[in-house]
Amino acid sequence: MYEQPLQLVRGDGVWLYDVDGKRYLDAYNNVPHVGHCHPRVVEALAQQAATLNTHTRYLHETVVTYAERLLATFDRSLSNVLFCCTGTEANELALRLARECTGRQGILCTAWSYHGNSAAVSQISSSFTPPAKRGPFVRTIPVLDPYRERNGREDEALASAYALDVQKGIEDFERRGVKFAGLLICTAFSNEGLPTVPPGYLPKVVDIIHKAGGLFIADEVQAGFGRFGSHMWGHQVLGGLPDIVTLGKPMGNGHPLAGVVARADLVEQFTRENLYFNTFAGNPVSAAVGLAVLDVLRDERLLDNARDVGGYVIDGLKALQKKHSFIGDVRGRGLFFAVEMIKSHSTQEPAAAQTQQIVNRMRDRGVLISRIGPHNNILKIRPPMPFRREHADLLLQTLDDVITGL
Amino acid sequence: MYEQPLQLVRGDGVWLYDVDGKRYLDAYNNVPHVGHCHPRVVEALAQQAATLNTHTRYLHETVVTYAERLLATFDRSLSNVLFCCTGTEANELALRLARECTGRQGILCTAWSYHGNSAAVSQISSSFTPPAKRGPFVRTIPVLDPYRERNGREDEALASAYALDVQKGIEDFERRGVKFAGLLICTAFSNEGLPTVPPGYLPKVVDIIHKAGGLFIADEVQAGFGRFGSHMWGHQVLGGLPDIVTLGKPMGNGHPLAGVVARADLVEQFTRENLYFNTFAGNPVSAAVGLAVLDVLRDERLLDNARDVGGYVIDGLKALQKKHSFIGDVRGRGLFFAVEMIKSHSTQEPAAAQTQQIVNRMRDRGVLISRIGPHNNILKIRPPMPFRREHADLLLQTLDDVITGL
Repeated sequence: MYEQPLQLVRGDGVWLYDVDGKRYLDAYNNVPHVGHCHPRVVEALAQQAATLNTHTRYLHETVVTYAERLLATFDRSLSNVLFCCTGTEANELALRLARECTGRQGILCTAWSYHGNSAAVSQISSSFTPPAKRGPFVRTIPVLDPYRERNGREDEALASAYALDVQKGIEDFERRGVKFAGLLICTAFSNEGLPTVPPGYLPKVVDIIHKAGGLFIADEVQAGFGRFGSHMWGHQVLGGLPDIVTLGKPMGNGHPLAGVVARADLVEQFTRENLYFNTFAGNPVSAAVGLAVLDVLRDERLLDNARDVGGYVIDGLKALQKKHSFIGDVRGRGLFFAVEMIKSHSTQEPAAAQTQQIVNRMRDRGVLISRIGPHNNILKIRPPMPFRREHADLLLQTLDDVITGL
Repeated sequence: MYEQPLQLVRGDGVWLYDVDGKRYLDAYNNVPHVGHCHPRVVEALAQQAATLNTHTRYLHETVVTYAERLLATFDRSLSNVLFCCTGTEANELALRLARECTGRQGILCTAWSYHGNSAAVSQISSSFTPPAKRGPFVRTIPVLDPYRERNGREDEALASAYALDVQKGIEDFERRGVKFAGLLICTAFSNEGLPTVPPGYLPKVVDIIHKAGGLFIADEVQAGFGRFGSHMWGHQVLGGLPDIVTLGKPMGNGHPLAGVVARADLVEQFTRENLYFNTFAGNPVSAAVGLAVLDVLRDERLLDNARDVGGYVIDGLKALQKKHSFIGDVRGRGLFFAVEMIKSHSTQEPAAAQTQQIVNRMRDRGVLISRIGPHNNILKIRPPMPFRREHADLLLQTLDDVITGL
């Protein structure tokens, strides 16, 4: 993660403390979504763990309450939820649902994706799995890179051009005799570098998928639970309705909790012929924790905060962009930011070594961020949701100092 | 699970309480291994969750301490552990390890197995996945059924005959042009009906596997953490040394915690070419919970208890066998028991309907058990580890009454 590994011993809100008592501003972790060790989440966890922790072979009211609260945040067509423990398990189940329900095998993902660590999910995690290991049933579409590829085009033209990549992927499957089951993408394109998706792109893509008889699977592990501020889910921001949605990381604020939300007809078709039981998933403790996360998001108005502070950070990053020629592009929504580092504005050549330096110097100065993208030249800034303007000031000031000192 | 679903609201040790305040003796659940809501485990969970919960990108001493404590219970050759969140994830990773490290695909499992819910692990879960859905890389060996198949043979002869099934399975792969990667079995053969494995069986099997260039994967999700009383792990009871071991259910007393223990050379070979990162796995909270479970097992001498009470229950069940002709066979080790219900001793025909009745009437009378086996005619009795003689008396008395009333 860093040249000097971090040994952390305590967390509180947006702050982490190492073994020597040094404090770090967490501008990287999205798992502690409502803040490290949030007292309401810890209390819900401890209370329910002291009372009862079983499994879904027995009925429990909290599990039903949580399922209803969660589903109320989705389009009404997405009316069923299956609980899992990890994002990998959620994407595994989504692939099983899509393949069983369509009777087809071909899955499209992007050329720099990460969706988890099982055999099937590794095949659609192209950033770590070379083509030879992806098998015959996975094809990739190119990574969206409007920063380099817009070439003066309007949103509509760019959206159509990118949507055409999905059409080409489906046709490529057909040429190889593989039937198309669906497209699975992260609605933040997080691993891909958080590109600014042109408006109109996702509706066009969903239309192409459905015309080809496939399903649209939205991986909301990164974008979900209000990360973008304006909406609860990434697909709502991009304006495309999924058939299946997968949830993970922020869902339990660190407790292993994940899920699949899907159309009822798909879940019914799947469960008619397949057993799905998950020992730990949907237990009363996980449900109590999940509910507490939803409560805190609402009561502390953390989506509003993401919008407000998000805009403030973007303005600050754009000011840094004017000052430092290393910064090629600044983008983001809500509390998820990407800062693309380049060697020159004319060539847009990625500045990977400098990006790595920045991440490490930021760590040394007590601010945690990371980097992403096919060229490892994009600063990934994605703090817990209670990140305030004063934290933004510290982030921006430190980044300014570090880039100045390069 | 039951004709009348159970709505539970509270758990304490071996006791569960439903929404109407009715108390149930838990003689079924192995996930709350050291007892429902054990205060030391809950305290460890709550304490660490209030202090820090991150992931293995950062260092944390508790994770290392836990890994060392856990590995000390295995043979020294099994010196590496990879943490996961569920048994499914552990078996997924074990399959990936075995297939990557041997460069082969063929996996043998039994004809009535259950190992989890992902795409790859479903293929080796033959009890829920029909042959057509298991793909070309999975073959099954017959379920061991010494109760019906001993035919007067000595242990040695029976062990050799059963081991031959593994040899035949490997040869069957070869005939189909599939290279043999390994055998994955539950060391309790739990789903298969807890057969009494003849001494000498597993060493012979491991020998056959290794001669064929494959790996032995021991699924300890059911048998592990001292369930059998005499040893910490099922493979130690059966006397065969695995190359890879998978852990799950009892590991976190209900907290989603699982793992893969393996030879260092396999882990090194695998991680040279593959990334394995699991967001929630091996976090400080899970490690603190896992440590607390090991502490309680030791401090409350729960393996000794399993041996003592286990013998007492077996004696009681054998007394019931003499009284009730419905009982064909009684078997078990430690605190894991199988009672096979039959229609007649001459035909040994499974009494599935009566078995279902017994499970439901036991539930009505406040004792929770379940049933297993290819014919659904085997009572599955597998209480939490702090199950004492007085609990055994209640179990045995209720079972006697219920069978008498059939």
